[in-house]
Amino acid sequence: MNKHKVAVLGASGYAGGELLRYLVAHPYLELAWATADQNAGKLVGEVFGHLSHLSDVELATTDPATVPDVDVAFLALPHGAAASRGRTLADRGIRVVDLSADWRLHDAAAYSQWYDFEHPHPDELASWVYGLPELHRDEISGSSRVASPGCYPTAAVLALAPLLQERLVAPAGIVVDAVSGVSGAGRKVDADYLFSELDASFKAYGVGKHRHTPEIEQELSLAAGTDVVVTFTPHLAPMARGLLATCYAQALGSVGDAYDALATAYKGEPFVRVLPLGAQPATKHASGTNQALIAVGGDERTGHLVITCAIDNLGKGAAGQMIQNANLMLGLEETAGLTGGGVYP
Amino acid sequence: MNKHKVAVLGASGYAGGELLRYLVAHPYLELAWATADQNAGKLVGEVFGHLSHLSDVELATTDPATVPDVDVAFLALPHGAAASRGRTLADRGIRVVDLSADWRLHDAAAYSQWYDFEHPHPDELASWVYGLPELHRDEISGSSRVASPGCYPTAAVLALAPLLQERLVAPAGIVVDAVSGVSGAGRKVDADYLFSELDASFKAYGVGKHRHTPEIEQELSLAAGTDVVVTFTPHLAPMARGLLATCYAQALGSVGDAYDALATAYKGEPFVRVLPLGAQPATKHASGTNQALIAVGGDERTGHLVITCAIDNLGKGAAGQMIQNANLMLGLEETAGLTGGGVYP
Amino acid sequence: MNKHKVAVLGASGYAGGELLRYLVAHPYLELAWATADQNAGKLVGEVFGHLSHLSDVELATTDPATVPDVDVAFLALPHGAAASRGRTLADRGIRVVDLSADWRLHDAAAYSQWYDFEHPHPDELASWVYGLPELHRDEISGSSRVASPGCYPTAAVLALAPLLQERLVAPAGIVVDAVSGVSGAGRKVDADYLFSELDASFKAYGVGKHRHTPEIEQELSLAAGTDVVVTFTPHLAPMARGLLATCYAQALGSVGDAYDALATAYKGEPFVRVLPLGAQPATKHASGTNQALIAVGGDERTGHLVITCAIDNLGKGAAGQMIQNANLMLGLEETAGLTGGGVYP
Amino acid sequence: MNKHKVAVLGASGYAGGELLRYLVAHPYLELAWATADQNAGKLVGEVFGHLSHLSDVELATTDPATVPDVDVAFLALPHGAAASRGRTLADRGIRVVDLSADWRLHDAAAYSQWYDFEHPHPDELASWVYGLPELHRDEISGSSRVASPGCYPTAAVLALAPLLQERLVAPAGIVVDAVSGVSGAGRKVDADYLFSELDASFKAYGVGKHRHTPEIEQELSLAAGTDVVVTFTPHLAPMARGLLATCYAQALGSVGDAYDALATAYKGEPFVRVLPLGAQPATKHASGTNQALIAVGGDERTGHLVITCAIDNLGKGAAGQMIQNANLMLGLEETAGLTGGGVYP
Repeated sequence: MNKHKVAVLGASGYAGGELLRYLVAHPYLELAWATADQNAGKLVGEVFGHLSHLSDVELATTDPATVPDVDVAFLALPHGAAASRGRTLADRGIRVVDLSADWRLHDAAAYSQWYDFEHPHPDELASWVYGLPELHRDEISGSSRVASPGCYPTAAVLALAPLLQERLVAPAGIVVDAVSGVSGAGRKVDADYLFSELDASFKAYGVGKHRHTPEIEQELSLAAGTDVVVTFTPHLAPMARGLLATCYAQALGSVGDAYDALATAYKGEPFVRVLPLGAQPATKHASGTNQALIAVGGDERTGHLVITCAIDNLGKGAAGQMIQNANLMLGLEETAGLTGGGVYP
Repeated sequence: MNKHKVAVLGASGYAGGELLRYLVAHPYLELAWATADQNAGKLVGEVFGHLSHLSDVELATTDPATVPDVDVAFLALPHGAAASRGRTLADRGIRVVDLSADWRLHDAAAYSQWYDFEHPHPDELASWVYGLPELHRDEISGSSRVASPGCYPTAAVLALAPLLQERLVAPAGIVVDAVSGVSGAGRKVDADYLFSELDASFKAYGVGKHRHTPEIEQELSLAAGTDVVVTFTPHLAPMARGLLATCYAQALGSVGDAYDALATAYKGEPFVRVLPLGAQPATKHASGTNQALIAVGGDERTGHLVITCAIDNLGKGAAGQMIQNANLMLGLEETAGLTGGGVYP
Repeated sequence: MNKHKVAVLGASGYAGGELLRYLVAHPYLELAWATADQNAGKLVGEVFGHLSHLSDVELATTDPATVPDVDVAFLALPHGAAASRGRTLADRGIRVVDLSADWRLHDAAAYSQWYDFEHPHPDELASWVYGLPELHRDEISGSSRVASPGCYPTAAVLALAPLLQERLVAPAGIVVDAVSGVSGAGRKVDADYLFSELDASFKAYGVGKHRHTPEIEQELSLAAGTDVVVTFTPHLAPMARGLLATCYAQALGSVGDAYDALATAYKGEPFVRVLPLGAQPATKHASGTNQALIAVGGDERTGHLVITCAIDNLGKGAAGQMIQNANLMLGLEETAGLTGGGVYP
Repeated sequence: MNKHKVAVLGASGYAGGELLRYLVAHPYLELAWATADQNAGKLVGEVFGHLSHLSDVELATTDPATVPDVDVAFLALPHGAAASRGRTLADRGIRVVDLSADWRLHDAAAYSQWYDFEHPHPDELASWVYGLPELHRDEISGSSRVASPGCYPTAAVLALAPLLQERLVAPAGIVVDAVSGVSGAGRKVDADYLFSELDASFKAYGVGKHRHTPEIEQELSLAAGTDVVVTFTPHLAPMARGLLATCYAQALGSVGDAYDALATAYKGEPFVRVLPLGAQPATKHASGTNQALIAVGGDERTGHLVITCAIDNLGKGAAGQMIQNANLMLGLEETAGLTGGGVYP
């Protein structure tokens, strides 16, 4: 079988590097083009010490016009930098999987409010599909424009959507308290992300204003069939990878009911595993994989359900999910290239 | 000035070791006795590589009868092991600061419910003071029996008590989502606490049933003047020290009101600092100190206040607070021995 | 193509877990049997949170008699526990790849001296091949009894053997200063390996007496054609995986000569990469892979060459190399199942 | 007693921050002036979250002319930035403790060779004392110009000098293999020092050309009474603090002789501890202190002694030693302000 040719735009960041890693091992996809503005002209093997197998791949500048006619373009560009580029590539008939937020939100006003960004093509937002396969598989399969979810929304929505859908938790008063490894901030060179600042330390950030909030709310509102607003607090833990969302919601049923609803919703899903009652996922159990591990518990005295979801922020939270989306869009086996076990310990 | 003589029971655990470290630098306290059952007969310097200055101190077995007539006995023993020992020492007229939970809860029934432990002296629970100086300074000063708080309750109660007292948050629906460094689990030799299991990983534990819950509720109920129940979820982060509580409560006032209430409540407190609006504490900012760093934010759309409190779980969350309590009980300057700055980075 | 059936004895340790991970993704090998004495009766998915794909595999006790007729048996057992078991399996006609030291040393006396262990079958030591493919590929291909190298010897021998062979360094006075991640100590439950003890700390151990010394010397002596003794000091770094050997030897040629010799020796090797002069490998560049990354530098003033070699102690230092050996023994492509890129960051 | 007034130039880096921490707790020194060019105008408490006690100290620009008439000026400036400033302050009659390399080397040519820096005042190099109190206590006490040692030289020289002096190791062929925590690189904002790049990884750097080499050689040559050249390889470990030097030298006596020589040399030294034979120091045992922990072992087969020395790179390797030097220069107790125990775990 001939491999499908793909391009990666923004290949020198962490999500881009993880895409390249997945592509190396993918049976049906083949890297044909890679770009990275700051590292244009360098070889991939120079930019990433762990990708010397790709030392013959030279990084180009990120110009949609020079991208060859590939089957899929993966965009791992900063927010704001993908809106027009993604559109241009899609207009050329190339399937696009975009990791930026630029095409994730259905409501153009949310871009002004949360991103300080006037969306240049608000009337085209509806033509992109939100790429969470467990919720929108059929739309993704039939689409050539997929906006792959953010890391926090992936975990929070997988944890909560089935419970809202089944009316097992109240749509009001939901709290999402989440923790990410530092690679979630990308490869940005900033004093705040120096090793000595973050090692052996833990902190909250973006309280009340993180940009993933409207994305979580959009998908949970769809699941609930009513408007959902959430209080979302992200934190930074001293680890490079991994993400855990701990979600709190008022129970409208028992913990057992919630477990059953989650187990039913994800039965047969290759990348979501609901843990036995009483168990809790560690983020390292998903490290290097496209898996999401979900557990549900609760406190009967307070009536809160507590649902935790662990993913690799660069896997199911970024590059793994992009591959999963591309597999669907190309009609491939959904798990192709994503079956490698996690790296532990 | 003659130094006060103190004993440390349970000196070979992490809280015990931190007590010894504080005592070395304390201007008015002097270690006269140290015990550690598993390491009895060894020198402190053998048990703790960083305490070679104490290589002339031999560890005794933990028998209250053999403790000499010291001015203060610090108990850093497992839960259940301090109830009778603490009582015996107190009956001998020795001031006792106990770090176990054995004398913290006013309601004996809570021990059966949360600790699987029938309290041996339920009618004496009322004679012990809950040793959170910022809330109970006068009682502590006048007492010789102080139950020093747990690490999670210290952070959660400091974050929430003034807001409940001032009716700025609702007493119902409070969520405490907290994260501790691994030393919070003590020096227990268990596969779950091996370096390779925990490094680069993050997880929740004890969902809906952690034993610090009734302690948090007791103190918040006192502050609110009404029964408060909280949903409390502890997590483990890959760091040895540090604790952050992220607390969620329905706002009955603005973020500004909440900031003012906290700033007023802790004005003049030597060990609590309310950060400027917009700032967030990192646990490492409190590392090696007795400080608690508090920040308040919120999400107006959801009506939640988000209050974070960072401490060193072995400092304000354990040994530092025990020293602070002893200072008060002895009529010393409250900050004596606790002024050393934190270790950063 | 029918997959070859394999057994893993000692599947619940870290090397065993990594073997299972590699097997999941291997195109020609299939797990047919797994044992783990302490966890016998449990499912693999219960023992390893990251291997839920293997939740239908039950762990048996480690008895060679009950191992089915597999094509290859991988032994990841403690030293001393593999000598007889490995022999028994090999006598049954099963290919054996043993990760213990029990069959690595050609000189039976070395077992008494370094391992406090009287080898039970000294006259059979010669029938086993030392499984470092880059040095002994042909012997491995033709053998059914392969003793896979230790982690430190793998790195040190790859770094130094070509230089000794080409007489570019003196055989006397060699120093191997090496650093391993904590998983090198296995999953042993011991206070020394607790997270809080090792995080943010670094130390030497086994000075002058580490058991990998005779193994390094055996292979370097073979390469040099003369007796080589080395001063070897292992260290523990606060990371779960990764190993770096920094090797010092008196130069008999220039740094450029040394670079050329290494580049020539490893030309075409799929798992060894010699970095450009001036570059240095980070252990994370090899994390999750079977790669060895080598760099050479020197100090002309002192006449020392400094050769560094980075591997994943669980990859090329353990499970990856075992798979590589099995591939050779079965006549498969040497890289089968080992092409996945590393996990970074 | 009136406190001595001190200035810290370069107060917003990690060594500067550690100086401030030590000064807060110092009984006889008082901060009167602090500078930091990049953060001029900010309060110390804004620059360092852990130093809120210093929120009334505003950072000035680093101009020797505006420094008030203090008793001691501590310079924690980049190499090259201290040569003239230190001289200017000393000419004003202010005692200077300089942490840069600018006044450490006696041989002006070494600056050209190793630092690419033409020393502006080569004939004044002799008027500065190398501030390693264990070797040069009397000179330091009588001087007002002290060049405080680098972190690697402190550990390597303490480990080796007494053995060279007593002719227990050969002066030729010495290898210093050393490992530092990341704070040794300072607070430099560079992609190489991002958390995600360094966490869970280990690597060598500066092979054959690190600038601390001539400093180590200068002091070892003095101790040996003959020219000593060393092969020095620094490494970076995933921890913020801590430094271990593992030193290899040909033994001219037994391990026992070496132990005795070290024990004798450091008998009575408040900040150097020679561990019992067989023990090895962990860097965390010195964390937050001014201690150096030394162990000696060896390999009789190869004739190498292996001497390890653990320090806190920011303590005995930087700020702690600067305070120790200042104490000597002012005629204070040498241990003043430096008795706090280490932070463990």
